[in-house]
Amino acid sequence: MSLIVMKFGGSSVGSTERMQRVARRIADYKEAGHKVVVVVSAMGDTTDDLIDQSKLLNANPPAREMDMLLTVGEQISVALLSMAIDAIGHKAMSFTGWQAGIETEAVHAKARITDIKPDRIFAALDNGYTVIVAGFQGSTSEGEITTLGRGGSDTTAVALAAAIKADVCEIYTDVDGIYSTDPRVVKCARKLDEISYDEMLELANLGAAVLHPRAVEYAKNYNVRLVVRSSFTQNEGTSVKEEAVMEQGMVVRGIAYDKNVARISILGVEDIPGVLAKVFGALASNGIDVDIIVQSGTQDGKADFAFTVSLNDKDKAIAVVEGIRNEVPYREVNSEVDLVKVSIVGAGMVSNPGVAAKMFAAIYELGISIKLVSTSEIRLSVVIAADTVHDVIRALHTAYGLDTADQVFVGGPQDRR
Amino acid sequence: MSLIVMKFGGSSVGSTERMQRVARRIADYKEAGHKVVVVVSAMGDTTDDLIDQSKLLNANPPAREMDMLLTVGEQISVALLSMAIDAIGHKAMSFTGWQAGIETEAVHAKARITDIKPDRIFAALDNGYTVIVAGFQGSTSEGEITTLGRGGSDTTAVALAAAIKADVCEIYTDVDGIYSTDPRVVKCARKLDEISYDEMLELANLGAAVLHPRAVEYAKNYNVRLVVRSSFTQNEGTSVKEEAVMEQGMVVRGIAYDKNVARISILGVEDIPGVLAKVFGALASNGIDVDIIVQSGTQDGKADFAFTVSLNDKDKAIAVVEGIRNEVPYREVNSEVDLVKVSIVGAGMVSNPGVAAKMFAAIYELGISIKLVSTSEIRLSVVIAADTVHDVIRALHTAYGLDTADQVFVGGPQDRR
Repeated sequence: MSLIVMKFGGSSVGSTERMQRVARRIADYKEAGHKVVVVVSAMGDTTDDLIDQSKLLNANPPAREMDMLLTVGEQISVALLSMAIDAIGHKAMSFTGWQAGIETEAVHAKARITDIKPDRIFAALDNGYTVIVAGFQGSTSEGEITTLGRGGSDTTAVALAAAIKADVCEIYTDVDGIYSTDPRVVKCARKLDEISYDEMLELANLGAAVLHPRAVEYAKNYNVRLVVRSSFTQNEGTSVKEEAVMEQGMVVRGIAYDKNVARISILGVEDIPGVLAKVFGALASNGIDVDIIVQSGTQDGKADFAFTVSLNDKDKAIAVVEGIRNEVPYREVNSEVDLVKVSIVGAGMVSNPGVAAKMFAAIYELGISIKLVSTSEIRLSVVIAADTVHDVIRALHTAYGLDTADQVFVGGPQDRR
Repeated sequence: MSLIVMKFGGSSVGSTERMQRVARRIADYKEAGHKVVVVVSAMGDTTDDLIDQSKLLNANPPAREMDMLLTVGEQISVALLSMAIDAIGHKAMSFTGWQAGIETEAVHAKARITDIKPDRIFAALDNGYTVIVAGFQGSTSEGEITTLGRGGSDTTAVALAAAIKADVCEIYTDVDGIYSTDPRVVKCARKLDEISYDEMLELANLGAAVLHPRAVEYAKNYNVRLVVRSSFTQNEGTSVKEEAVMEQGMVVRGIAYDKNVARISILGVEDIPGVLAKVFGALASNGIDVDIIVQSGTQDGKADFAFTVSLNDKDKAIAVVEGIRNEVPYREVNSEVDLVKVSIVGAGMVSNPGVAAKMFAAIYELGISIKLVSTSEIRLSVVIAADTVHDVIRALHTAYGLDTADQVFVGGPQDRR
């Protein structure tokens, strides 16, 4: 007998039929003798519909009231799923975030979990109930309702799994697991049996939107065994854990890409001490996340440097840079969009020289120019023109020996709550 | 400065435009210097839609999970109304039932309020917020979410008004107030300026579905001044209080009718001791509410008697009566439907002889036969054929001097949550 946490996203419970399929799946575990705690997101379009309703009344609603509004989505899901389980002869009990003992910081729209008090969950399990917990939500110690922000339901599942010391936390989604790259781009993408937390983190941050980074971090910190698998098939899925076995010399585990990239360059900067600190300090204090930063050396006492931000932040970032021209004199600031960042990820890269060279060679052979390069211990990213991304990913997938003979099934878009 | 509780039903907040109108109305009180606590029901069809969704998954869902599901309706309303108030420049804070400190019995679908701990409400009021509380819901001391059953939002409003010692509890609805009879039947029905709790209770129980009886009882017990008024006009409404002034010799205050009536007669019952106790004991233990009971005397050691039940309970009541035939021998049981109960109500009836005679005379003049009669101190009810009800009500309305010169506006159907 195991204690299992199962998490189902909004598309997995998006219709009556899907809800019933999920209920059957939970019942199977129950009938096999396991204790089960389920975390569910809001059904399909519920959240978007609620947001639309709110916009009609207030273009800029208070975050507290938005949390109050949006948390009903998960409350509907847990109640209906409990009813569906009851309908096939099993006892189920639903809990909101606060009922499940999920305490968060006193912040709205993006609170972090500070503590979980699982007494009621254990009591229900001991009484033979399957426990259904609303994802994405919690409450402060003062009883204010909060939400965890994007990917919150994944985080709820992992945090609960840690708190109740579950044997495994299964994340059910609409794809079979974690792939070596986007199967919509590369038909012979490889489903990974295993991946390490660190590799998963790099992939998650880089746009392989299956697991939210915060949930992976949480799983890593509390050593929660994660499995990502499909709610529509019985396939094994991908196991995410501390040490993942490297398959047949695959140094690169996966290839991710992110189209949400804008490059900003500042040219002819006076090379006075503290220049970088001033520029990136000003950007940070304006809430702009900077990803890649490149400085290409100094010439005649002037430096050029470049950095990337998300597309949303581009104009704001330029305004910030223009605003500090008095403190940081420079000749010109310019920007570029229609870019994509392509990254190769693998825990073994650090000890395998030549991995980077192979990437540059493959891209060079396509006649494509690389605009920026950035590296970490287990990741190498390049920024290239957006219209070349599919060719580059296919070439890299082949170059690193990731292609399989099989063409993979490709599900719908991921839901990210 | 007053402390005011305002309650809005589902039809009053059933659209964006109506929600905005309600927000404006609340803001008016706020701008006049009052402290305001608002109780809201679920918007329009929300509850029915949720019930429909649940039926697709489970024909007989657990009551606990149904409460979990249905309480989201009010949570949506309070969040959206707070946003609408914020949008016109006033601070508002929404609370679920449990956040507002509304404690109930550990019963689902029809819990009674056991206690209200209004600390958070007072704190929010002191900080300048208008407080918006979800009607119809509460939680047990164990943190289980419960609902109050039909008319629950009225009860929430009155109970809150009592707990925070509000100066008045205003129930906003889609009619102007309490009328002398149903304005859809009698165009010259009279809007009452005042009515006593007891009169209101008789009218509420008898089908004048503006205020839920439980809320009126609560108001009577805690002496909460109630005002029933329209959310669509600025008219004064009807004040419900302990002693209502009698207008210009109006002994009868109102005329109500109830079509949800079935008559059951048991004929030729052996007149042995305890017969009535056995019959009505058996009905009660099967959960059947009996309204009027009439026994018309004994003949040859046999008695006939008749009683009324709601239409829903008719078949079940007959089955119960047939089930006890061994204990209570009788010749025949029969039933009649297509009936209506018409009642005249007035606190002054007890001290005004001739009120009953006038009723019987008016009905006799129409050539309509009376099937059953029942009386209380402030009420006189007759059961007649359903197709005669409009004629009877119009005749009684005129006979008791209730007609006004004005034809009244008639709103949509009442929402009853």
